[in-house]
Amino acid sequence: MNESPGRVVFIGAGPGAADLITVRGARRLAEAEVVLFDALTDPALRDLAPQAQWVNVGKRGFCDSTGQATIDALLVRYARSHRCVVRLKGGDPSIFGRLEEELQALADAGIECEVVPGVTAAIAAAAHTQRPLTRRGNGRSVSLTTAMTKQGQLQAGRHADTEVFYMAGRQLGALSRALRKAGWPEGTPALVVSRAGWPDALASEHPIAELGTAALLHAGRPTVVTVGAGARPAAALLTCRDLERAQSGIGALAP
Amino acid sequence: MNESPGRVVFIGAGPGAADLITVRGARRLAEAEVVLFDALTDPALRDLAPQAQWVNVGKRGFCDSTGQATIDALLVRYARSHRCVVRLKGGDPSIFGRLEEELQALADAGIECEVVPGVTAAIAAAAHTQRPLTRRGNGRSVSLTTAMTKQGQLQAGRHADTEVFYMAGRQLGALSRALRKAGWPEGTPALVVSRAGWPDALASEHPIAELGTAALLHAGRPTVVTVGAGARPAAALLTCRDLERAQSGIGALAP
Repeated sequence: MNESPGRVVFIGAGPGAADLITVRGARRLAEAEVVLFDALTDPALRDLAPQAQWVNVGKRGFCDSTGQATIDALLVRYARSHRCVVRLKGGDPSIFGRLEEELQALADAGIECEVVPGVTAAIAAAAHTQRPLTRRGNGRSVSLTTAMTKQGQLQAGRHADTEVFYMAGRQLGALSRALRKAGWPEGTPALVVSRAGWPDALASEHPIAELGTAALLHAGRPTVVTVGAGARPAAALLTCRDLERAQSGIGALAP
Repeated sequence: MNESPGRVVFIGAGPGAADLITVRGARRLAEAEVVLFDALTDPALRDLAPQAQWVNVGKRGFCDSTGQATIDALLVRYARSHRCVVRLKGGDPSIFGRLEEELQALADAGIECEVVPGVTAAIAAAAHTQRPLTRRGNGRSVSLTTAMTKQGQLQAGRHADTEVFYMAGRQLGALSRALRKAGWPEGTPALVVSRAGWPDALASEHPIAELGTAALLHAGRPTVVTVGAGARPAAALLTCRDLERAQSGIGALAP
């Protein structure tokens, strides 16, 4: 074991394309000797740290605890033998990034950490569709949440003016039912964006009662669902941006 | 009036230091002929677009509608006489950025827009303090909200596991009372971070009942307040990060 362990820099890679990383994140990445990266980060980010050893610790959706424990142990091991280890996470590390567990493992081992923030998927979805998450007057709060519990149950509430559901792509029909059960009117607008921040991002809009019809369009893609004030277009934007609605009932948005 | 108007790129500058802008944002900025910027963006960003005309449209806190209307009109005017106009906003444009009004004005004028997302202050505060906004198990939802209404009233709810209040720095005592009224237990942890993302960021922690004591430390600085699950440190981090608590009852965090 090395007497003077290295440091670990957690970097939010942003939600998609490599150029959505921050300038600070790109610079820290260039200093890395080892990079532990997730499945959802852009392979083009490798060009920023060609000298580093790149270790894939990717997982999709809910990992088992063994998976997380292995990542924790790898971080400690690499930090003990390298000066600068980067933990590259899709989106932002502080939002659904399991950051606490990894910080804890490194703190227990006495290893110094830094966190470089990133753009989270909800924000990238808003940018892509040009539908701001907050609105003056009737959109003063935004909730970022995961619809699924650890037990695989689906829950939804009606707490904020805008609610954004992460990791809900596989259960759009169940989300539709949960939203109505929580008291959202059937006609409330919902915006479904998959691969937000990537060049092939897809967006569609639906009244929440018909959210299930979006499943096919977004199948197999990381998806966020925005419900409420932040999902609606400004009236003029509707006209301007040439909104298309397919006969199928799926309203695909041309960005 | 020009027959072929330019385009407007909204760029989230991030919440603080210039290197928290995204790589895409930095590149778009370098192409700008005109930049309309806010008071809270880092002057060092000018180095990325020295060729551009920089126009200060900054305001702090709640602007009057004349102020917003003037900005809208300026955007349209510059877009009609220049190929590439950048609207540079602190944080992310979709979160408390008055983006809807400006998009609307440009849509009405038939001007094409792009939105480049940025890091929002809540996320930068979490990175600075190494306290993730979501936690496994008991921190599944995060609400971003402004405590103040347009009428200057202060409201707080208890909706998400973690609530982050923007623009609450001037009313910490009132926020403390509103949180208790909303049912948060008096000992609930609150984390106050001012100038998140800047080199001189300050963080302090308090039980919500004592939130008012933070007013002096953060006076006159843009502030976010994180309440609930995302405000607490992991137990080991407390020990590790050498948390300092002043005699005054203000708990200042050494990052």
